[in-house]
Amino acid sequence: MTQLTPGQVVAALVDACSRKDLDAVCALVTDDVVYDNVPVGAVHGPDGVRTVLSGGITDAATAIEWTVSVQTESGPDVMHERVDAFLVNGTWVRIPIAARFTVRDGKVSLWRDYFDLQSYLEQKRAALG
Amino acid sequence: MTQLTPGQVVAALVDACSRKDLDAVCALVTDDVVYDNVPVGAVHGPDGVRTVLSGGITDAATAIEWTVSVQTESGPDVMHERVDAFLVNGTWVRIPIAARFTVRDGKVSLWRDYFDLQSYLEQKRAALG
Repeated sequence: MTQLTPGQVVAALVDACSRKDLDAVCALVTDDVVYDNVPVGAVHGPDGVRTVLSGGITDAATAIEWTVSVQTESGPDVMHERVDAFLVNGTWVRIPIAARFTVRDGKVSLWRDYFDLQSYLEQKRAALG
Repeated sequence: MTQLTPGQVVAALVDACSRKDLDAVCALVTDDVVYDNVPVGAVHGPDGVRTVLSGGITDAATAIEWTVSVQTESGPDVMHERVDAFLVNGTWVRIPIAARFTVRDGKVSLWRDYFDLQSYLEQKRAALG
């Protein structure tokens, strides 16, 4: 089987998130992955990733759509700009994000999301009523 | 003269900012540039860029250092992760940023910075006393 390029690994990760398939997500990250939501802080390992994504994806949202607008890569480093949309109580919460990834041996070893926390929390509060 | 690659154009832009050389910055952006500080909003054209950067660079800060940790590019699109450090009243204010650029004919036509506004404002308030 041909190994995926770093950009394809990141695309597969986003696809797994959009399908709410946390097992697939965890299979695409290294055992020592660092997943850093910059304004919040970093977690480590597949279990850390699962815990954080469970909060945003599988629990609160009845549907999710993550849309990448542009993706660039140089060697093991991949970056992209995307909007993460979560359907919460019938209202779409949309988070504009720029992310940086490093890929090692076909798995993501660093995932760092940059976004404005306040904009996200305000939308989420409004959606939850 | 050989035209710079998109990645080199972005590197020159960051270098001009670090030198507080707003004329050089404005010479590196297109007439219809969109400069979008995501949590704040977008400005248009070199004059818009100059106004926004004047507030952050030439006015409040006695020294600045913008450090790019990783830069990736695909065709006209460039992204990077950087820390913008501003010396304000003897205290360094540091903003972790991920940015997306598009380069057209050797100039930046889109510059979009993603960061957490609250983290920046809190540091700035503390520095200003």
